[in-house]
Amino acid sequence: MAAAPAVRFPVFGLVRLLGLAAAAGILFWAVHFRGGMALSTKEESKLAIFNVRLPRPLSIILAISHIIKSLPLFQVHPVLMLIGLVALNGEALLAYKTVPGTKKLKKLVHLALQFLAMFLCLIGLWAVWKFHDERKIDHLYTLHSWLGLTCIIFFSLQWATGFWTFWYPGGSRSGRASLLPWHVFFGIFIYVLAIATSVSGLLEKSIFMQSAKMIGCFSTEAMFMNVLGMLLVLLGALVILAIVSPGPGKIDTYRGSSE
Amino acid sequence: MAAAPAVRFPVFGLVRLLGLAAAAGILFWAVHFRGGMALSTKEESKLAIFNVRLPRPLSIILAISHIIKSLPLFQVHPVLMLIGLVALNGEALLAYKTVPGTKKLKKLVHLALQFLAMFLCLIGLWAVWKFHDERKIDHLYTLHSWLGLTCIIFFSLQWATGFWTFWYPGGSRSGRASLLPWHVFFGIFIYVLAIATSVSGLLEKSIFMQSAKMIGCFSTEAMFMNVLGMLLVLLGALVILAIVSPGPGKIDTYRGSSE
Repeated sequence: MAAAPAVRFPVFGLVRLLGLAAAAGILFWAVHFRGGMALSTKEESKLAIFNVRLPRPLSIILAISHIIKSLPLFQVHPVLMLIGLVALNGEALLAYKTVPGTKKLKKLVHLALQFLAMFLCLIGLWAVWKFHDERKIDHLYTLHSWLGLTCIIFFSLQWATGFWTFWYPGGSRSGRASLLPWHVFFGIFIYVLAIATSVSGLLEKSIFMQSAKMIGCFSTEAMFMNVLGMLLVLLGALVILAIVSPGPGKIDTYRGSSE
Repeated sequence: MAAAPAVRFPVFGLVRLLGLAAAAGILFWAVHFRGGMALSTKEESKLAIFNVRLPRPLSIILAISHIIKSLPLFQVHPVLMLIGLVALNGEALLAYKTVPGTKKLKKLVHLALQFLAMFLCLIGLWAVWKFHDERKIDHLYTLHSWLGLTCIIFFSLQWATGFWTFWYPGGSRSGRASLLPWHVFFGIFIYVLAIATSVSGLLEKSIFMQSAKMIGCFSTEAMFMNVLGMLLVLLGALVILAIVSPGPGKIDTYRGSSE
């Protein structure tokens, strides 16, 4: 296996920028393209695809942003999935390289961000499940749902195993050293799976809407969703590049975290 | 970055088995589920989705297998894409680790398999384009098509750059050494993109058929396509694992190829 490519551009800044753009993109899509439609009348709100009213306690706990809080109805599923499993997950994967300070602090940021991501994606899962129940749509028949459920199960197992081994109570030195390469490999696999699942979700959503004649094949919304999907692919590639790229003096930061 | 995980199971055999299973799976899908329908009458054949009659010279050049050759009509696009960009591409990526003999031989197998893969995927692209033209379906409006076109363009550029630099006329020693890490990174990226594109293709195909009431949500065919999609994800993960895993005494095989 060849050495990993050394990056000569500000990849961490670019990743953050693209992650923010992706999160902003899905919010804009939900509010501008879908929310506008959903909020027109009470009855239409119920029918609007992916609209679920957040239970009060959860919406308080969530508090992701003023935009989400200010919306009585929302496209909860895609927004939370993308913010959690893609944007926050990506930041968390890079925490060992981007967070200054002690190893312990880097690790804390890593596991805390991943916990938040897991929390958001479980609410996102609940949202789509509730939406399906309300609309009497079958559960788990599309490949998107199979990919997504696999992703969430793996993500939760990975988080629990990582917490148990690397944080509390913590495994033995040799146990941690032998888990670490697999933890990193599975972490990258789950992240790529999350990107692929998001892309498949955008794809199926636009096809559903196109088949129902809600939007045209080359409508602004369809093109916006495609661009968002391509942006996710680019983000994914850059996050992986940022992980594997040695960078100045950073080559052993991650390896050191098992010690 | 942690060391890559060391694999303790026969990953190369498993990759070959899953690659063959994926190729067999898409052939079975095309012949059993789609071909059976397409071959019933002349008129229906014209209407069957993704059916394109192969021009005689191309079908002779192709000669992938007796099954493909014996079929007058075929689901050309998905079959060739999956065999080319996923199954053959995966084998080609691993050629430096699986092919015995000299470095030159490994390299020749690598570039020859990639050339075959590129050739098949260009015919696969032509097939879906012709199908769209015949059915008066718009080109390039789905995210699947955007991903796929990106994948093919990158794949072709990657092949041409690789051929030019590592085969003929061949770059300078330092040029090859500095390209190699990027060649490997982009190769893996393109492979993962090919898997994601195939998965998105399976997804959009089943949704199109479900929307047109051609198949049910939980029909055998829909479930078969989902299982095939999941198998592709597993195959992709194992190919990447096989590439990055050091293996006994193999750790520098790939690196050596730039010399």
